[in-house]
Amino acid sequence: MLMLIAKVIGTTVSTIKDEQLTGQKLLILQQTDETGAAIGKPYVAVDTVNAGVGDLVLTAHGSSARQTAITKDRPVDAVIMAMIDSLEVDGKITFQKT
Amino acid sequence: MLMLIAKVIGTTVSTIKDEQLTGQKLLILQQTDETGAAIGKPYVAVDTVNAGVGDLVLTAHGSSARQTAITKDRPVDAVIMAMIDSLEVDGKITFQKT
Amino acid sequence: MLMLIAKVIGTTVSTIKDEQLTGQKLLILQQTDETGAAIGKPYVAVDTVNAGVGDLVLTAHGSSARQTAITKDRPVDAVIMAMIDSLEVDGKITFQKT
Amino acid sequence: MLMLIAKVIGTTVSTIKDEQLTGQKLLILQQTDETGAAIGKPYVAVDTVNAGVGDLVLTAHGSSARQTAITKDRPVDAVIMAMIDSLEVDGKITFQKT
Amino acid sequence: MLMLIAKVIGTTVSTIKDEQLTGQKLLILQQTDETGAAIGKPYVAVDTVNAGVGDLVLTAHGSSARQTAITKDRPVDAVIMAMIDSLEVDGKITFQKT
Repeated sequence: MLMLIAKVIGTTVSTIKDEQLTGQKLLILQQTDETGAAIGKPYVAVDTVNAGVGDLVLTAHGSSARQTAITKDRPVDAVIMAMIDSLEVDGKITFQKT
Repeated sequence: MLMLIAKVIGTTVSTIKDEQLTGQKLLILQQTDETGAAIGKPYVAVDTVNAGVGDLVLTAHGSSARQTAITKDRPVDAVIMAMIDSLEVDGKITFQKT
Repeated sequence: MLMLIAKVIGTTVSTIKDEQLTGQKLLILQQTDETGAAIGKPYVAVDTVNAGVGDLVLTAHGSSARQTAITKDRPVDAVIMAMIDSLEVDGKITFQKT
Repeated sequence: MLMLIAKVIGTTVSTIKDEQLTGQKLLILQQTDETGAAIGKPYVAVDTVNAGVGDLVLTAHGSSARQTAITKDRPVDAVIMAMIDSLEVDGKITFQKT
Repeated sequence: MLMLIAKVIGTTVSTIKDEQLTGQKLLILQQTDETGAAIGKPYVAVDTVNAGVGDLVLTAHGSSARQTAITKDRPVDAVIMAMIDSLEVDGKITFQKT
């Protein structure tokens, strides 16, 4: 997988789940381009940086998604591990967190 | 891989299989968007939360799919690990389990 | 990756290969939908359930493909680990092995 | 990932690289169908079977790509692990190495 | 995943992130073909070879992305692990670093 630039668009509520997901914040995201415009289907990731709806973030996937204290050894294969302040492409700022 | 929002659409019967799959519930799913509308090809996952046809669920994949008691060390790379109660996007409830 | 419903469509002969693939049965498959109709590009998997051309099977991928006695620790990332007897979607049998 | 049928189309020269890639043969490939006709974007894999431009091969991916003596523990997630002699689909030879 | 030929197109600034990403250089890339022409969506990878905007590089993914000294055991699933000097396809140089 690739590390994706994505926007947090919503939240998931789940009471019946694997016990190891208890207390994990399951956010809905959509992959974006370098300007923050949506370019992908919705997917879910566990939040580890206190992200909220509207934030642009980075997500890591697969076994790498389990390399944080919050997701270690859990059935999780997508994690929000960074909040994006700004993106610059070809010398121009294409996204700036307001 | 990404954690997918998916609908359970059916079941798989298999008598000739790797012995480690004995007793595993193999459900057929289809990825959906945040409203529960189908957007993907059918795939199969092992159920660990007693899901049934029509339920909206979350699936985890790859080695993360083996991080549950039921799927540990087995040739399984997709698992249903959460039942979805509700999904909210941009402040609106886009799916609510009835 | 997802666990795929796939049809065995052919066989691969390879004499020059990593020594750990010696004796492994390399079958060619195509992903199908829940009726067995082809929907994907051809790919190769190691057979572990004595599948043959025409059979509908389940394949597991990535590190999960190495969780069988036959493929353990080998450079294999797709394995046939179940033969499909039948598939049922929305209460109707969509595939039945004849 | 799936094990892909692919054609070797070229070579990569890289002098500045992770030290663990020193001495690794980085070939450029394109996924093909069962006849050897190209159907995918170019990608790179480490060669372990002395393949050359024009050869049809099998590639394994992800952590399985590190299960060979040459690629063990290295930042490599695609490996050429078999040279294809022939492919047969629905009883007909669709590719034969000349 | 496949090892991708990609062009570095920009940089990511992130102050709120998993502590294990501190000091990691997060570059924005786009997959290219064998001539360096863009063919994919933007993604992010950790740099380990001092790459800069405009460079053509190789990226490795998944657990293989953690097999470098810089990314070991971190929530990283894409890494730049080689700078490309030149690419040759069917006997012709299709890319040469200037």
